[in-house]
Amino acid sequence: MTDCIFCRVGRGASPSWKVYENDKVYAFLDINPATRYHTLVIPKAHYTNIFDIAEEDLKEVITVVQKIARLYREKLGMEDIQIISNTGAAAQQTVFHIHFHIVPRSTTDGQDIHWVTHREWRGEFNDMLEKLR
Amino acid sequence: MTDCIFCRVGRGASPSWKVYENDKVYAFLDINPATRYHTLVIPKAHYTNIFDIAEEDLKEVITVVQKIARLYREKLGMEDIQIISNTGAAAQQTVFHIHFHIVPRSTTDGQDIHWVTHREWRGEFNDMLEKLR
Repeated sequence: MTDCIFCRVGRGASPSWKVYENDKVYAFLDINPATRYHTLVIPKAHYTNIFDIAEEDLKEVITVVQKIARLYREKLGMEDIQIISNTGAAAQQTVFHIHFHIVPRSTTDGQDIHWVTHREWRGEFNDMLEKLR
Repeated sequence: MTDCIFCRVGRGASPSWKVYENDKVYAFLDINPATRYHTLVIPKAHYTNIFDIAEEDLKEVITVVQKIARLYREKLGMEDIQIISNTGAAAQQTVFHIHFHIVPRSTTDGQDIHWVTHREWRGEFNDMLEKLR
């Protein structure tokens, strides 16, 4: 898509701080980082989200996520990393070209990606699975 | 590992609410769900995290993540999903057998996985990339 910012970044038509690139995948520093080395990994081809990305491109993207995680451990000593991909506005997706966040974490980074959990819902689980049949 | 809870779940030795299974991958409802249908996807083989998982198994896992996302859209109408995998205690990993969370989201689910962002760090980006060379 010519007007998609991540399509432009992926083909070098918009500036970015590139971390890694191959034929299918592009990785660059998030310009609004949660932590240092917060990185986005995208397919060069345009897909909106987890629903429409071609399986082969999804595999290429996750392989690069792993490659970068290993690079950050090797070069920077990072041991704690969150990998996040959001599909849909209600899931806090803001750019509608699928991307995986790599967020290096430390206990002093001031971030707390916290969930409220509901163990009381276990009683509904059998009914929930029934709906998938 | 015989004493790893997710190894036991993956081979059916501990009870779980199974969503999907194939030769390499097992998916089940998180017993402490953040939202309804909060699901965990694991490789049956034991790996700790993104650093040590075999690339082929990682690809199998992410393929199942996509399959389940599509199933939830088809069967339940879900359009908003967060995919999260944590490596390391400081990244909020609590079970040390790699797993991908699928967290269906809605604007009324009471969850807000919020980051404080630091656009002022952009001035450091060139130096940061230099450290990766």
